[in-house]
Amino acid sequence: MFKGKIGIIGAGALGGYYGAKLARAGNDVHFLMRRDYDHVKKNGLIIKSCLGDFELKPNVYDSPESLGICDLILIGLKTFNNCSLPKLLKPCIGDNTIVLTLQNGLGNEEDILRVFNGLYPNRDNKEFIIGGVSFLCSNRIGKGIINHTDHGHIRIAEYSGDLRERTHSVSGMFNEAGVKCNPHNSLMQIRWEKLVWNIPFNGLGVAAHRADTQIILSDKELTEATIGLMQEVVDAAKADGIIIEPVVIEKMMRNSLSMGAYKTSMQVDYFEEGRQIEVESIIGEPYRRAKNAGIKTPRLEMLYAIVRRLDSLNRKLI
Amino acid sequence: MFKGKIGIIGAGALGGYYGAKLARAGNDVHFLMRRDYDHVKKNGLIIKSCLGDFELKPNVYDSPESLGICDLILIGLKTFNNCSLPKLLKPCIGDNTIVLTLQNGLGNEEDILRVFNGLYPNRDNKEFIIGGVSFLCSNRIGKGIINHTDHGHIRIAEYSGDLRERTHSVSGMFNEAGVKCNPHNSLMQIRWEKLVWNIPFNGLGVAAHRADTQIILSDKELTEATIGLMQEVVDAAKADGIIIEPVVIEKMMRNSLSMGAYKTSMQVDYFEEGRQIEVESIIGEPYRRAKNAGIKTPRLEMLYAIVRRLDSLNRKLI
Repeated sequence: MFKGKIGIIGAGALGGYYGAKLARAGNDVHFLMRRDYDHVKKNGLIIKSCLGDFELKPNVYDSPESLGICDLILIGLKTFNNCSLPKLLKPCIGDNTIVLTLQNGLGNEEDILRVFNGLYPNRDNKEFIIGGVSFLCSNRIGKGIINHTDHGHIRIAEYSGDLRERTHSVSGMFNEAGVKCNPHNSLMQIRWEKLVWNIPFNGLGVAAHRADTQIILSDKELTEATIGLMQEVVDAAKADGIIIEPVVIEKMMRNSLSMGAYKTSMQVDYFEEGRQIEVESIIGEPYRRAKNAGIKTPRLEMLYAIVRRLDSLNRKLI
Repeated sequence: MFKGKIGIIGAGALGGYYGAKLARAGNDVHFLMRRDYDHVKKNGLIIKSCLGDFELKPNVYDSPESLGICDLILIGLKTFNNCSLPKLLKPCIGDNTIVLTLQNGLGNEEDILRVFNGLYPNRDNKEFIIGGVSFLCSNRIGKGIINHTDHGHIRIAEYSGDLRERTHSVSGMFNEAGVKCNPHNSLMQIRWEKLVWNIPFNGLGVAAHRADTQIILSDKELTEATIGLMQEVVDAAKADGIIIEPVVIEKMMRNSLSMGAYKTSMQVDYFEEGRQIEVESIIGEPYRRAKNAGIKTPRLEMLYAIVRRLDSLNRKLI
């Protein structure tokens, strides 16, 4: 099982939750924090969780320099902050550091790779990156307080290809800490499969104004648009050589019906937090990959146009 | 040239403007009014126009019964009020009454036909309906005040098919009154051609939040969505047997670029007036005709889903 110094960069609803779970299980976890640094330093971190609440007095840092070199870095940053990755990552990467990104959508491994390539121009830096998708319902509900309401499992895979011993050891560490984690042999497969759900429900949730899963699925036209978008994402995945079986759509639609009125992260970010949304990684990058491969995705193209425009206005709309 | 009693039903920015132009030219025009009745009865109607302002003391009525039977009825109602057509039209229709609708989108002639069919079940009532499209920039800017800022020409055609003498005489009456009017031999052709422009700019204008023509055309993705939608409307028109040449799209895009920051009626209704929008006649009915004919219009389908949802919320969004 993985042992070493773990740095959490982007310790919000996602990074904060997983980091706390790992720390509570006895791992050597270190949190880089920005707005909550003072509060957590003084009062600790509170995890309200459907699996049981707990508190923690974690190791917190207010700069990547003070965090220093880690063995494993877990990235939980919102993807619109990836422009900060060089500044945040460089002081924490050593010769053997592995970076695990659980961020949404496409393009995150590439952003991390660019940081590595700047530091180590003469080696294959893909080898040092693990990607993953997380199915987690959690929100930061106050300074140093994370509210975990449902799910939480993770699928991880090697950016460079096949599974390794360390993929299993990182996965094992999460499972030991009470976070269900499965290693998978294709990173692009798990990322695109998640997008089949994420693109329509995140995108339409914003474009159709505060449309949660229940609002979408009780509207005939929005449901048709959802299924149409899912099919386009399945087509778009071929741009990365990924084949997704049609049964995945059926299963997702069935599961979504039993979710109740679930609000996607994009909807929460846009309408409740009044912050930027992850439009590029979740919608823009998948659209561009399809387009560059000559795959027609008319709904995705229009959804991207609308949501990108809404994102550019978000502070005025709340 | 047409002579007779002319009734204006829906005497707002469109009906009020054309009615006033006809009245000023000496025609026998009678306005049915609702919210502006008392004011106009007392103070008259003011037309502020780029072609020259004028005032009028028109014949106004506050009920269709008091308006009574007309020779020609011009319908300028917003199409979401078509449910009121039976109540408004029945008292004004006699054996020879002709109804001219200049309303937006598709389905209006059918709504009028149903009223006729209730009154005259044993004759071909299509013969009594003229349809038309108007290219008019005007707004009601206060009680009894209409502001005409640009354009104003009309294309009319017979609902039952070929041009008749009366199409020319009605057309002549408008031209005499300073409103450029051209008779056309295919009503569906002029309606669908207008929709090629109206669907993307009205629909995206609302879906992409206050996106006027300039905002749309200065955004690469929204411009692509616009062209994509235009192509789908050209495809959809085949549902009614209408062929629209691709050059129409090029011409419209070129003209739109020279329009400046033009706000469509749907955008004004939604964001400035906080009222219902004409989503069914402008987007829903064209979409349904394409769908019933087995024509694929993925963007149109999704636009309809989004705009319909936004319309259902409009009073909460202003």
